[in-house]
Amino acid sequence: MDVTATTAELAAAAADAVRLVPGRMIDPVLSGLLITADADGILYAATDRERSARVRAGATVHTEGRVLVPAKPLAETLRALEQPDVRLVVEGARLAIRAPGARFALPLLDADSHPGVPEPPAVAGEVDAVLFATALATVAATASRDDALPLFTGVRLRSDRVGDGERLALLATDRFRMAIASVPWTCRESGQGELDALIPASLLAEAAKQLPASGRVVLHADEDRIGLSWDGVTATTSLLDGAFLSESKVVMSEVDTTVELDADALAGAVRRVGLYTDPRGVLTVEIGENEVRLRGADATAGEAEESVKSTVDGGRTSPSFQARFLSDALRPFSGRRITLAIQPGMRATVITAVEPDEVDLRYVVMPMLPPKA
Amino acid sequence: MDVTATTAELAAAAADAVRLVPGRMIDPVLSGLLITADADGILYAATDRERSARVRAGATVHTEGRVLVPAKPLAETLRALEQPDVRLVVEGARLAIRAPGARFALPLLDADSHPGVPEPPAVAGEVDAVLFATALATVAATASRDDALPLFTGVRLRSDRVGDGERLALLATDRFRMAIASVPWTCRESGQGELDALIPASLLAEAAKQLPASGRVVLHADEDRIGLSWDGVTATTSLLDGAFLSESKVVMSEVDTTVELDADALAGAVRRVGLYTDPRGVLTVEIGENEVRLRGADATAGEAEESVKSTVDGGRTSPSFQARFLSDALRPFSGRRITLAIQPGMRATVITAVEPDEVDLRYVVMPMLPPKA
Repeated sequence: MDVTATTAELAAAAADAVRLVPGRMIDPVLSGLLITADADGILYAATDRERSARVRAGATVHTEGRVLVPAKPLAETLRALEQPDVRLVVEGARLAIRAPGARFALPLLDADSHPGVPEPPAVAGEVDAVLFATALATVAATASRDDALPLFTGVRLRSDRVGDGERLALLATDRFRMAIASVPWTCRESGQGELDALIPASLLAEAAKQLPASGRVVLHADEDRIGLSWDGVTATTSLLDGAFLSESKVVMSEVDTTVELDADALAGAVRRVGLYTDPRGVLTVEIGENEVRLRGADATAGEAEESVKSTVDGGRTSPSFQARFLSDALRPFSGRRITLAIQPGMRATVITAVEPDEVDLRYVVMPMLPPKA
Repeated sequence: MDVTATTAELAAAAADAVRLVPGRMIDPVLSGLLITADADGILYAATDRERSARVRAGATVHTEGRVLVPAKPLAETLRALEQPDVRLVVEGARLAIRAPGARFALPLLDADSHPGVPEPPAVAGEVDAVLFATALATVAATASRDDALPLFTGVRLRSDRVGDGERLALLATDRFRMAIASVPWTCRESGQGELDALIPASLLAEAAKQLPASGRVVLHADEDRIGLSWDGVTATTSLLDGAFLSESKVVMSEVDTTVELDADALAGAVRRVGLYTDPRGVLTVEIGENEVRLRGADATAGEAEESVKSTVDGGRTSPSFQARFLSDALRPFSGRRITLAIQPGMRATVITAVEPDEVDLRYVVMPMLPPKA
């Protein structure tokens, strides 16, 4: 193998591949990046058996070939280079990374013992890249990071026919809060048509960071795997079990109080009053006539209250929340007016935008017992 | 006590006081900030018995007074406020922080049991704030963070008569490297005249961050304590024992090789070749005719070499260094040409600027045994 390329492009592609498959493998073969140089340029491929990534980069290929090298050292070396052009060339048992005045030599791993990186499953449909990234930024962050309960580490993606159009619903919960969004979905008849899968949130969160600022993301799916592809990148992962995460578990039949207010004003008050919460981190949203009053109190920290102007309808229920969860819930609504739909007792509160945008986010927060007086 | 003030000014002053005395005290009285409101405005004062800080802030004082409140909750609340003006007022057993729509109430601690925050010792002299901050940014960072050897956690400040003028020398070492700088010093005859003290580097590093972008810093000293004051802030600390950190321990009599090169070019090469070092993190600086070649090798990572154009005089010694220490040493010389004065064997290498600036930095790095072939 012997190729020359733009350092920045080769470095960005290697970094993307490493971030999509970050697993620290004990098996050195799986810690490697397969590099294939062919008529189309460079293809990086990586897998940890659960997840895999294929990333294309442009290159001038002098000699085709296929090698396996340690992934992170390759990515770090390319990232550290200041020279604009770089050459990758096999020299004996090494892949040499050459730039003017410099030579870095990575040991070649045994490419033949690598399990290979499978092609993604058949195409199911596609979504707008920006809307999908926006929805994922909130939904994937709402999933749990606790691998002991894998169900709650996933994001459910489900295609739905809504009126004339089709939507892809995104849903995640860690049991204390739930985020639900949806984006327009274009089904591809060649695929299965319908999609309903539970996908590791960590992969989707990383994909959301890498998605381009325009264009489309294609989703691939079969019974065991899902793939996302965009701009020369394909990420694939095994599905999680238990697609029964469902919005229908959140009953909203008893809303007795609705509050309309500015999301940022509430978020600022939560940040301040949140400094004065009990050891559980709980504050109370006291519903007034044309304001809500946040109240927090702690035996050692002192007490706090702050009012936020609101339009209140009903006004019978003053729920308490974890300040941290309330902050997380408000962040995606920054700059907008929101509605809180509040239910009595230990039933969920739902936050929506007064004027929903294309991502149609709903954020459900479970209340907490009020702080002791 | 009852005062109104600009939130931003009160918040900045409280944050400065907390950062200068960050100790997490088990004694709640010492975790408090003493607030005195008098004809001059607000004076914050804090101490952990070793260190203390007094910070002035402007305020309109309606009722004078003196209270002790938990320092960090006060600072965090003021920092989180978006309202431009704030009122601090004693209400029963609370200090209320009031802003439109909001009230935060901190418990009053027992001010009478607070040991008080002493005035700084007599003035010894003064230095330019920007030069002092520049010198400290490197010198204080070179001190050790290992409290088991307190001597190496300090910066030695020593006034010297040099020719017609006077300089304040700053010196710190963690035994593996040493940074030495000096700045013009204006002695005050009213003080002891001469200064020679070992001061905790952590306090000086924090002071360096807070120093203003112009003006002077006044140094106060007696046999037990040193103080720094600028712009309404006074920080005081007990001295460390053992002012025998000394440049004279670094013998430079056997320099057989000098190299002149661009600091950033060398730093870039160190960063890249540093990815390919042995488990000790050591690379070799191989001296050529009109270049230096950095070499690193590791059994698993591979090998690297990179050349940097240099003017070489001598050229008999090719030392090895910890890549990390070499990077630290080069950072303060960014954008400039430097000279490496290299000695044979396990003797120190000294880095200086080809055209020294007003801070006159010298950075000494101890060599390491070369990596095994």
